[in-house]
Amino acid sequence: MKEKDKPIGIFDSGVGGLTVVKEITRHLPNESIIYLGDTARVPYGIKSPETVIKYSRQNAKFLKEKGIKLLVVACNTSSAVSLPILRDEIDIPVIGVIEPGARAAVRCTKTGRIGVIGTEATVKSGAYEKAILQGARGKGQGARLEVIAKPCPLFVPLAEEGWFENEVAEMTAEIYLKSFKGNGVDVLVLGCTHYPLLKKTIQKTVGNGVILIDSAEETAREVEGLLKEKGLISNSESAVKDFYVTDNPERFSKVGKVFLGENGLGRLSIVDISSY
Amino acid sequence: MKEKDKPIGIFDSGVGGLTVVKEITRHLPNESIIYLGDTARVPYGIKSPETVIKYSRQNAKFLKEKGIKLLVVACNTSSAVSLPILRDEIDIPVIGVIEPGARAAVRCTKTGRIGVIGTEATVKSGAYEKAILQGARGKGQGARLEVIAKPCPLFVPLAEEGWFENEVAEMTAEIYLKSFKGNGVDVLVLGCTHYPLLKKTIQKTVGNGVILIDSAEETAREVEGLLKEKGLISNSESAVKDFYVTDNPERFSKVGKVFLGENGLGRLSIVDISSY
Repeated sequence: MKEKDKPIGIFDSGVGGLTVVKEITRHLPNESIIYLGDTARVPYGIKSPETVIKYSRQNAKFLKEKGIKLLVVACNTSSAVSLPILRDEIDIPVIGVIEPGARAAVRCTKTGRIGVIGTEATVKSGAYEKAILQGARGKGQGARLEVIAKPCPLFVPLAEEGWFENEVAEMTAEIYLKSFKGNGVDVLVLGCTHYPLLKKTIQKTVGNGVILIDSAEETAREVEGLLKEKGLISNSESAVKDFYVTDNPERFSKVGKVFLGENGLGRLSIVDISSY
Repeated sequence: MKEKDKPIGIFDSGVGGLTVVKEITRHLPNESIIYLGDTARVPYGIKSPETVIKYSRQNAKFLKEKGIKLLVVACNTSSAVSLPILRDEIDIPVIGVIEPGARAAVRCTKTGRIGVIGTEATVKSGAYEKAILQGARGKGQGARLEVIAKPCPLFVPLAEEGWFENEVAEMTAEIYLKSFKGNGVDVLVLGCTHYPLLKKTIQKTVGNGVILIDSAEETAREVEGLLKEKGLISNSESAVKDFYVTDNPERFSKVGKVFLGENGLGRLSIVDISSY
């Protein structure tokens, strides 16, 4: 197989990374994709960095052995704590979801006050602050930027329950996001792959004056840019999507439809990666 | 060590089982307890029976090797799918949280319509229906009983967030529990160890005409009864509590205080049980 026709490998702790699959497919319809959702150990967002790193390494190794040309870490928590390690250990390009979102935030802010919402682990890691301030220094803006981060643990179960715009979602958003209203924040990064499902509710809560950054979309752009740069864009007419989960394919399939629509999922298999 | 002074072993997927610890301690203050919370793989409620059984076996083996006199499976999901297997494989008494709750429900109902709420996995297993109908047959009432079960996935993250009685909790309860109002259900089993934290909100939603069964309390009574019957009640003045988690002791400690109060937790250690 030609290098450029090899699949893109994508992993997430569960179904959330399907927002990234959706955007990559929209930007690059001829790419084959192998997706791994670690549903036996989901969620990562409440776990320690050590454990998230261990799980991420196993996921990466499994995908690497499938012969991928590029690895996308489509999980904010895993990107936040394990990206430098994976980049060190794997000899193909590795893209996470944090840097693309951070760069977009720096590009969009006018007030210099950037909000970030994510899981407990992502927020605690400080990875977005770091990536945003690094990106800003590159543009000579480091000094004037301020990052306000807030964990929103209930957004993931709300998204998985399919409660995107009901009263419970609205009230939860109101409680979590009230500190972002009227405090000068003009950009809010959705720092968890589940959150784009709640986009309408989040936008309504913070108001139209705040730009929402969808890291899935930014990541797809970054993937496109990198593949172009390396001459690795596929023009295959026979692109396939293979999905693997570590547990409960039935539930993945059901919740997956919420993310990708009725016909979105390709072949789905269950795999044991605990020995990788 | 005398057999009766050996500790009681208790495991749960995370912090939820602390409601059982609390009730056992209230009933039996002189018992030593070893608690294992499998926080590296929490939650069990969205996982497949095969995976829950694998994890439960490892938890049980870890506790058994600590020299316990009795094993309490303080997790409804694990009780629902792995109890017969654990009883088969372990040579000490094993008590789950489902049978005590089911028995109490049969005792309390007058209309014969019993509601059960729990995780997706617990509800799907049908374990409560089975235990309730078995208990009723023992009393010659099998034919006249009806069980209505409903998964309430958001109750666990709500409890862990500490949102027991706010508007979000109330509205979520309203959506999940409306089918229990005015349909003749007079007993509702809280079939997940997290749910007692939301007791007030649940009671308010279904009304005072419905009796709530707290499986933690019923399980503690069953533990007391069994130990009495076997002459294994400890009267030690030096009872100790040891807590083990498989990940993130910091978070366990924080959320644990919600369950047991400021001074509730004893020694807390982290342990790797993936090779058990």
